[in-house]
Amino acid sequence: MRTVFWEDRQLKMIDQRCLPASLEIATYSRHADVAQAIADMVVRGAPAIGAAAAFGVALAASESEARTTRDLLIDLEKAGSLLTSSRPTAINLAWAVGRVLEAAHGMGGNADEIREGVLREAQRIADEDVEVNKRMARHGAELIESGDTIIHHCNTGALATVDWGTALGVIRLAHEQGKKVHVLVDETRPRLQGARLTAWELQQYGISYEIITDSMAGHFLQTGGAQKVLFGADRVAANGDVANKVGTYMLALAAHDNGVPVYAVVPTSTIDLGLADGSRIPIEERGPEEVLGIRFRGERIAPVEARARNPAFDITPHRLITAIVTENGIVRPSFAANLPSVVRA
Amino acid sequence: MRTVFWEDRQLKMIDQRCLPASLEIATYSRHADVAQAIADMVVRGAPAIGAAAAFGVALAASESEARTTRDLLIDLEKAGSLLTSSRPTAINLAWAVGRVLEAAHGMGGNADEIREGVLREAQRIADEDVEVNKRMARHGAELIESGDTIIHHCNTGALATVDWGTALGVIRLAHEQGKKVHVLVDETRPRLQGARLTAWELQQYGISYEIITDSMAGHFLQTGGAQKVLFGADRVAANGDVANKVGTYMLALAAHDNGVPVYAVVPTSTIDLGLADGSRIPIEERGPEEVLGIRFRGERIAPVEARARNPAFDITPHRLITAIVTENGIVRPSFAANLPSVVRA
Repeated sequence: MRTVFWEDRQLKMIDQRCLPASLEIATYSRHADVAQAIADMVVRGAPAIGAAAAFGVALAASESEARTTRDLLIDLEKAGSLLTSSRPTAINLAWAVGRVLEAAHGMGGNADEIREGVLREAQRIADEDVEVNKRMARHGAELIESGDTIIHHCNTGALATVDWGTALGVIRLAHEQGKKVHVLVDETRPRLQGARLTAWELQQYGISYEIITDSMAGHFLQTGGAQKVLFGADRVAANGDVANKVGTYMLALAAHDNGVPVYAVVPTSTIDLGLADGSRIPIEERGPEEVLGIRFRGERIAPVEARARNPAFDITPHRLITAIVTENGIVRPSFAANLPSVVRA
Repeated sequence: MRTVFWEDRQLKMIDQRCLPASLEIATYSRHADVAQAIADMVVRGAPAIGAAAAFGVALAASESEARTTRDLLIDLEKAGSLLTSSRPTAINLAWAVGRVLEAAHGMGGNADEIREGVLREAQRIADEDVEVNKRMARHGAELIESGDTIIHHCNTGALATVDWGTALGVIRLAHEQGKKVHVLVDETRPRLQGARLTAWELQQYGISYEIITDSMAGHFLQTGGAQKVLFGADRVAANGDVANKVGTYMLALAAHDNGVPVYAVVPTSTIDLGLADGSRIPIEERGPEEVLGIRFRGERIAPVEARARNPAFDITPHRLITAIVTENGIVRPSFAANLPSVVRA
């Protein structure tokens, strides 16, 4: 089953807020509801929200009552802006929406032909995502040795993509190749994507794992308990700086401090050559309730008067990254010199 | 109110598992129950468990039916072993129990006189802890500047000690001196001592604070959002390596990476000159349920099949520590050279 898919002229998505307690499918027929679902993290993971937004544009096309090509394109641009602004950090949103809109502008034909074309392009983005993930996995699996214990942050599996996964896809392929791997799953506060989603996926795949709190990774790295660190990314700047789920920076620091290699696994659609470095990447700050309570079913932890901060991402400087794995190959430093060739490949 | 105190021939302690929802006092009349309460973290914080264990020996003295000095001392030694083994990492347990037992052996007199003497020594340890904390605070507050935002890990306040606190005691005194301070409170997974206990204390003292997840400290340190990092310790080795609540190492790394000073605030009873470095400090591993659920009221997060790891402490290498604040003054590197003089002071 795909995380994000089109069925009966509607967008369907696994509601990731309900896992691992229950597997529920949410259905959308209006693009504004898709934008809200992305903001509320019904769907999360940079490639998955890209595909969801692309299908959102397809919904906007069918919602639009425009009869002329020009009026339809205006409606699609509006819908695209709304969808792109639903979350700020992951570049895949803007990338996917931009690709669908560019196709719409370029395809010619009448409004209904464009409606069909937009849906075809969204479907193509979703299909390509699966293919791109599998190519990344083949490159990345070469880095994994049998016997490795791997620390993994957030969720980068089938749930974070359309199917298969980025960093978790690498681990999954290494496992299928018969390599013996064990995963230390960062629980990934505040929303617990590791403890809830990555653990759920690993359970399905039969891959050995244990959950740790994010703060424990340093201890295991320091005492020889982990040989690799893997994560995905929401945006990679031209110099290799990586924006990813908050906590990635501290994890990469601890790995680097102990000589453990750090791999970011990303489709080239996540690489933003237009940004010189990570300091230009906008960091979303979400509401305090995710920190003050435990998001899953929402129990309050803190005193009733307490306030909280909640930056959802952080920037891992390129100096801490051993290699960036893409569908077009493994990129090593200098990233500034070597990233452009894989993006253009 | 003290965290740990003697009243009506019994040991009374704030049950720290219930805060911030409710303030409850647990009462103990048997030393074995005190050992269990330390293991279950009814009371936690290195100085607080030291005082609790000292009173535990006093309970053992009144429980014992020994009529001779020799028989009583044998009973006290047995009780001391049980109390010392209730948690392995904090040296204060062994220090406090050792001090009471040594006093018992040295005081002469009959069994009843020793019973009284043991209680007096336990009471002296508790009273001295408050005094020592206030001396630490006076030294440490000199390091705090008005306008500082301070990241604080775990709980080191009145709850972690008999009263006042170590690292949080420094912040509290700086606030009372009229310095404008703001605290970013690491929630401190898995048991959430920050979000539950430190936030509760700061609320009482009227000190400005916000809660963050442990994984967010790096983001704030990287973006100029914090000027100091403060924490306590469970044991300090002769070279200045610090064993403290898990997550301290990654926090210190992130501070060090951004040139932000890192201060460990500890009574000299926490310094173990008998251990050359941190690698010899035993790291307690607690049960997986603290990670798999949220300890406060215990909601399960992870898939039902999931397993977890739960090291309760980690080692922060001395190279990441800017200074160690003790009741006898501020110690700067080289710690190996400079720690012995404050311990002997």
